[in-house]
Amino acid sequence: MNIEEVTRIQTSFDAQTMMATFDARIVDIQCGSVRIEAPISPGARQQQGFGHAGLTFSIGDSAAGYAALTMLPLHQEVVTAEIKINLLAPARGEKLISVGKVVKPGKRLCVVTAEVYAVEQGVQTLIALLQGTMVPVTA
Amino acid sequence: MNIEEVTRIQTSFDAQTMMATFDARIVDIQCGSVRIEAPISPGARQQQGFGHAGLTFSIGDSAAGYAALTMLPLHQEVVTAEIKINLLAPARGEKLISVGKVVKPGKRLCVVTAEVYAVEQGVQTLIALLQGTMVPVTA
Amino acid sequence: MNIEEVTRIQTSFDAQTMMATFDARIVDIQCGSVRIEAPISPGARQQQGFGHAGLTFSIGDSAAGYAALTMLPLHQEVVTAEIKINLLAPARGEKLISVGKVVKPGKRLCVVTAEVYAVEQGVQTLIALLQGTMVPVTA
Amino acid sequence: MNIEEVTRIQTSFDAQTMMATFDARIVDIQCGSVRIEAPISPGARQQQGFGHAGLTFSIGDSAAGYAALTMLPLHQEVVTAEIKINLLAPARGEKLISVGKVVKPGKRLCVVTAEVYAVEQGVQTLIALLQGTMVPVTA
Repeated sequence: MNIEEVTRIQTSFDAQTMMATFDARIVDIQCGSVRIEAPISPGARQQQGFGHAGLTFSIGDSAAGYAALTMLPLHQEVVTAEIKINLLAPARGEKLISVGKVVKPGKRLCVVTAEVYAVEQGVQTLIALLQGTMVPVTA
Repeated sequence: MNIEEVTRIQTSFDAQTMMATFDARIVDIQCGSVRIEAPISPGARQQQGFGHAGLTFSIGDSAAGYAALTMLPLHQEVVTAEIKINLLAPARGEKLISVGKVVKPGKRLCVVTAEVYAVEQGVQTLIALLQGTMVPVTA
Repeated sequence: MNIEEVTRIQTSFDAQTMMATFDARIVDIQCGSVRIEAPISPGARQQQGFGHAGLTFSIGDSAAGYAALTMLPLHQEVVTAEIKINLLAPARGEKLISVGKVVKPGKRLCVVTAEVYAVEQGVQTLIALLQGTMVPVTA
Repeated sequence: MNIEEVTRIQTSFDAQTMMATFDARIVDIQCGSVRIEAPISPGARQQQGFGHAGLTFSIGDSAAGYAALTMLPLHQEVVTAEIKINLLAPARGEKLISVGKVVKPGKRLCVVTAEVYAVEQGVQTLIALLQGTMVPVTA
């Protein structure tokens, strides 16, 4: 990844006000893979006090979407066509880490996956698995 | 739905700090169906300025989950086992409305769907369809 | 639907040898909706003797795909990009009926659903719900 | 895996007449992972002559289900609650290979994935990815 390629992803991410609301940030960008972290903050919880599925989904979806974007020409953006999440365990702990990956790049459709982990006192647990389709669009 | 049944759903919803972060509220509770609304607020947007898929997912998932809860005994809660979202159109406008419904209730698994609409200057557009599985748990 | 439109769907269906293997047939074609029936035959069962999920999936997917095709120009075909199935009850009885519907037509992507019913001694039970994405391709 | 554990999976598989219809067979059983192969036979094709999505789904779903069963007590069976398939490429060639894996075992729910490959003149191509939920039931 050159500077220009990394910058366009960071710029797109920064334009998502939802990511700021969640205090999420991109921590790694590789060709075909993006890692995002976010705290399980007081304002992002479900009724039992764990992180909300909407938080888990949001950073999983974003990591998967930006993973797709790493493999597309600079003038393009992606939107999520569809994505499925299986929730494996409660989002318990201090923060979530999501790792998005491209399974099959494509001009019309990119198939992606993401894993989301919760980190509690340094111990990382897989809490969700996502599988979906991103669609390249002209920015 | 009697008062006790409605109250336990409102109480559970109120315990979700994520719903307060999104300024979301329950606007209708029927047996097997729940409607939730949330504004497309400045802090819940994606990179093109539309509502973030995470917002659409969150209120779709919540409406589907609480729809399942309307059909369960008072001492139970539900958690999402898995859910899939197809995004049909950008979340454009002032607010989102989600309508969750139970397709098949069950003691072990409840199959649910949700439709999410965006409202722009009074015109309502279907923007997302969700289909998933809720699991009853002891509260 | 004019004759030409109905014919191209029947012709495509007839070219699927899998549908002949399942003894499946199209029983209704409307704009945006297709109905397919298949017997739960001795060679299409799972380990408990009920109809196999692969049969339920196949006719659900086909009904959804051909529903999409009813809304596309005559020179196009569709392929399934992705589809999700929730199985609600065993495929018990003499035959299955699937009803595919278009939720959102589109030039790049068509979002579709299908319901699959089992018929046992004349009683029809909803056994599966599918939600997916069809992609138009040049035939 | 001891003999008894392997036998109960082979016995369950042999009871699925659909697998015989597809001429499918189990070629490997490990704890948490099962591999199934099937020819792309003349009777299992879609309208363009490739393997039908129903074949790809069936052996993906079976491999995932039996992977779950390897991690369950001997008196149990599994049924598919839900599964999603993303189709990545046409099922072109002589045969399909599916590899099912357990992501998260559980007494109530097992989360599973499967990869399906097409083999054409010895070259193996990933053509589908499945992610779903199996439910243990008493046999």
